[in-house]
Amino acid sequence: MAKGDVKLLTMWASPFCMRVKVALAEKEIASEEIEERDLLNDKSDLLLKSNPVHKQVPVLLHDDKPIAESTNIITHIDQVWSAKPLLPECSYEKSRARFWADYIDRKVHPAGRAIWSSNEKDEVEVAKINFLDIMKYLDGTLGDKDYFNGDTIGFVDILLIGLTSYFPAYEKFGDFKLEDHYPKLAAWITRSWARETVSESLSNPENITNFVIMMRKMFGLE
Amino acid sequence: MAKGDVKLLTMWASPFCMRVKVALAEKEIASEEIEERDLLNDKSDLLLKSNPVHKQVPVLLHDDKPIAESTNIITHIDQVWSAKPLLPECSYEKSRARFWADYIDRKVHPAGRAIWSSNEKDEVEVAKINFLDIMKYLDGTLGDKDYFNGDTIGFVDILLIGLTSYFPAYEKFGDFKLEDHYPKLAAWITRSWARETVSESLSNPENITNFVIMMRKMFGLE
Repeated sequence: MAKGDVKLLTMWASPFCMRVKVALAEKEIASEEIEERDLLNDKSDLLLKSNPVHKQVPVLLHDDKPIAESTNIITHIDQVWSAKPLLPECSYEKSRARFWADYIDRKVHPAGRAIWSSNEKDEVEVAKINFLDIMKYLDGTLGDKDYFNGDTIGFVDILLIGLTSYFPAYEKFGDFKLEDHYPKLAAWITRSWARETVSESLSNPENITNFVIMMRKMFGLE
Repeated sequence: MAKGDVKLLTMWASPFCMRVKVALAEKEIASEEIEERDLLNDKSDLLLKSNPVHKQVPVLLHDDKPIAESTNIITHIDQVWSAKPLLPECSYEKSRARFWADYIDRKVHPAGRAIWSSNEKDEVEVAKINFLDIMKYLDGTLGDKDYFNGDTIGFVDILLIGLTSYFPAYEKFGDFKLEDHYPKLAAWITRSWARETVSESLSNPENITNFVIMMRKMFGLE
């Protein structure tokens, strides 16, 4: 599978980095991880040089050429390492996958963040309802399939599963259980986390919840 | 070039519809336009059925199968009608094009809208500076090339040019001229509009400015 040298500029608590790690693992691509130590106060020169526009992780260095933005990176990985394709073969199905990818990218993480970004009961309730409304559509498109991609894990699965380390924090601060509302979607999370490619790529949800608590302290919410 | 029946659910003032029209014109794809008459109060049943998640135009009906979201539609068009490719051949260059596509999609239209959405001098000034800062990066990546894609119009060009019918309204309400700040980018707009595929696909900027004035009246700003 050698198609050049692969490095990933990453940070352990970034859900967008986690999804890239899952994609690399599913494709069995060997890579070196370069951890950013302090994204708030001291971004590395390599990061600033590699992603001068957004200055954010993840960045994939493919033969030292930088590729930024996680969905873009995963699309690149799928095109260059074409074995075990993540996107469907059919053009129309590809467009469906891109549609849901965009939906996930725009909605899930900001909606989840809104749940823990306030101590106002009404605001938290609105944020929770909004988050569950977003999940409703994802649950609907998953349906009775094992994965969004069908029988095997694919593009949409990887983009969404990368964000799920944060879900227990959303449940804690929003006071709900996803499985009470969308048991199929909750089962998909359990099924996906049972894969080594996922569990070894994603940060432990307990550590993420502690990270969220630390951020809440920074924002004066705890 | 016949690859099935193509219809476009559209609305004349939507910049996201305009960019799809440019792509169809560049690819010489015959299509039927179905105009939405009242997106505020009376969306058509066809639109609601075709894009039940976002309920927005544009939607491409390719052999009656709906594809939503303009960038997704244009990617689909480029994959299915592969002559005169819009995306570069090289995987790395493809990733660069997708990066800028995402940048444009997330930033340009909302930043422009912020300029005309307020009468507070300070807010308008901040919005103008933000818009020009976004343009700075686009000007930088265009550089001395004729098009973002190089010598020929491509994916990033089409995504951005589709939004430019609104630029004279931004200039009017922000009291600036893009060409005073970024003459190369302004020249790219003029160069692109000189193409029939663009000028015949995009709504007249004067009509768009009147449309913006109508919306400002609706919001109590005029």
